[in-house]
Amino acid sequence: MQRLVALISDFGTSDPYAGQMEAAVLAQAPEARVVSITHGVPPQDIAFGSVVVAASLERLPAGAILVAVVDPGVGGQRRGLIVRAASRWLVGPDNGLLMGAPAVEGAWHLDRPEFWQPDPQPTFHGRDVFAPVAGHLACYVRPDAMASPIEDALPAPDTLAQPSGGIVEGRIVHVDRFGNLITNIPGAAVRAIAHGVVELRDLRIDGVQPTYGSGPDPVAVVSSLGLLEIAVPGGSAEASLGAKRGDPVRLRPE
Amino acid sequence: MQRLVALISDFGTSDPYAGQMEAAVLAQAPEARVVSITHGVPPQDIAFGSVVVAASLERLPAGAILVAVVDPGVGGQRRGLIVRAASRWLVGPDNGLLMGAPAVEGAWHLDRPEFWQPDPQPTFHGRDVFAPVAGHLACYVRPDAMASPIEDALPAPDTLAQPSGGIVEGRIVHVDRFGNLITNIPGAAVRAIAHGVVELRDLRIDGVQPTYGSGPDPVAVVSSLGLLEIAVPGGSAEASLGAKRGDPVRLRPE
Amino acid sequence: MQRLVALISDFGTSDPYAGQMEAAVLAQAPEARVVSITHGVPPQDIAFGSVVVAASLERLPAGAILVAVVDPGVGGQRRGLIVRAASRWLVGPDNGLLMGAPAVEGAWHLDRPEFWQPDPQPTFHGRDVFAPVAGHLACYVRPDAMASPIEDALPAPDTLAQPSGGIVEGRIVHVDRFGNLITNIPGAAVRAIAHGVVELRDLRIDGVQPTYGSGPDPVAVVSSLGLLEIAVPGGSAEASLGAKRGDPVRLRPE
Repeated sequence: MQRLVALISDFGTSDPYAGQMEAAVLAQAPEARVVSITHGVPPQDIAFGSVVVAASLERLPAGAILVAVVDPGVGGQRRGLIVRAASRWLVGPDNGLLMGAPAVEGAWHLDRPEFWQPDPQPTFHGRDVFAPVAGHLACYVRPDAMASPIEDALPAPDTLAQPSGGIVEGRIVHVDRFGNLITNIPGAAVRAIAHGVVELRDLRIDGVQPTYGSGPDPVAVVSSLGLLEIAVPGGSAEASLGAKRGDPVRLRPE
Repeated sequence: MQRLVALISDFGTSDPYAGQMEAAVLAQAPEARVVSITHGVPPQDIAFGSVVVAASLERLPAGAILVAVVDPGVGGQRRGLIVRAASRWLVGPDNGLLMGAPAVEGAWHLDRPEFWQPDPQPTFHGRDVFAPVAGHLACYVRPDAMASPIEDALPAPDTLAQPSGGIVEGRIVHVDRFGNLITNIPGAAVRAIAHGVVELRDLRIDGVQPTYGSGPDPVAVVSSLGLLEIAVPGGSAEASLGAKRGDPVRLRPE
Repeated sequence: MQRLVALISDFGTSDPYAGQMEAAVLAQAPEARVVSITHGVPPQDIAFGSVVVAASLERLPAGAILVAVVDPGVGGQRRGLIVRAASRWLVGPDNGLLMGAPAVEGAWHLDRPEFWQPDPQPTFHGRDVFAPVAGHLACYVRPDAMASPIEDALPAPDTLAQPSGGIVEGRIVHVDRFGNLITNIPGAAVRAIAHGVVELRDLRIDGVQPTYGSGPDPVAVVSSLGLLEIAVPGGSAEASLGAKRGDPVRLRPE
């Protein structure tokens, strides 16, 4: 049985890019299962993309392959990578997108064009380089056959907020379809504070809850992305609170 | 061969929620086919979601599994369900979403956490409870092994308009991508009237047609969801008529 | 192994239409792989749809089946087709959508309802006619069994701009998710001019580049759809240039 291949990108679904990439995986690995985790990463947002990649990887079965493409440098000097992390595989550009993954074990530079689509389009490596390489991995081709080990892959962008003096100064990095406000404050920082207070402008939320509850008051939870999230149960925190991407959020002890 | 698993939710596709749920099914049932019917149910709209569930179920092959998640009560007291209907299986929350399905044969309460993701996220049962249970069903695990039979599953919301004195007072419950106005007046009510007149504000449409025709006049048809629909062939009824979700629509004999 | 089935339509993904069509393919061909290239063709835009179909077909493995549905005439007199092109199969309406494909070898008129869903919905042939026929093709049923050969399939719309006196007068036919402006000027016309100049209103771009580069100046490239495209690297050409679908674009020798 061929391996599961998952896809994350900023391609959206209204253009044929995501679908052509998926077809290119299946052209190489006709028996693989392919699943699109999301193609809705904001265009060229490597920082948020790296958080989605990290949060999604361990949800995949061991041995699975995750192709992640947020790639403003496509066709230029940036390298392509295979990364081994948490007993799974990642394939994508060497711009930090992949390197926020947990438990990185190694990285390889894609330098053997014979494993790519012939004459790859310089504007679309997702389809013509990364998808075929993922297809070969799904067929159990070894990374050493397709790429050379490197030690200097670009690190992940510094997306997550870190505690300083017991306080975490973060910001809203994403508003989801339900209007939930997702911050860059990691769940670990929440758990390190026995009783935390979350502040967004003049709003003060006392304590982080295990789940949404029934509203109508705003609540703070740790989201399924593993990040602090502000929600209005049964409604939209974005609409109720007039908040938006980029707004500062603070977590502090009571 | 493992069973087909279909997905319906209000998760949208710009966030990773739908894709993580799909990956969780495949983690459990690597040989299953998974198809997303839609993740575009309006957020937390159980009433319209239950119509989409009912209209989609019999389109699936016998034995298929439909996971449906519109779940404002996630993480609270509401139960999770397996439902048997029309020789297919449904998995989702006990909030009425599943119980509009045709030919319900039985319901079971999900009460065996050993069939779920360990430590399920209280904000995301779609991924951590319903998807693994659907994966087990796809591998032919019996519902009795994972759940206990119940008689008191919550009924479907009273979404569909019913005739009263030969007249049906309905409303627009959805505007689709083409600007077609989909009402909550069931096809059966249309067929019960030999020659019906459809009224939307001061618009009067004489007769329900079998298909769209060529425009430019507004027409009434029974949509592929099995509901009365007002369309402008070659254009958008939403734009031409200035109509919106919630507007009243009446069906009456000539 | 059953064949790969790819889907292109204008159904969007917020309604259940695309998902029901995919489920109908799998109901007929449970072992097929199904991939959605895109359902984001603008509603009823046969001209742009035919370009997406043509650009996507040769990206599929030989023997694959592409179901394409942009179908304003559904339920009327227009015929349904199987088309053989470039050693692949196409299924869809006889309105020109399929006939822009490269290397068309033959066309057949779908005239055997026993291969369709019984009582097909006159508003939804994608699900009830084209999907089951594609499923049969995926199971190696011959086109002659399901359809009759014809010579008079409607030609593709005249979407692509052609050179006249060395100059190509085109227009923007699509703006993609990144704000790239995709024109109807084919890559072949670009390659026929040793050093081309691209003009959009008072903007003049000197030369067509192999790839995007690093900005911030607008660049012209041949897009992954095989068409001349104007992009602003790291930004949105749509926003920076205030351009929109329909705007004229000219390609001329220096």
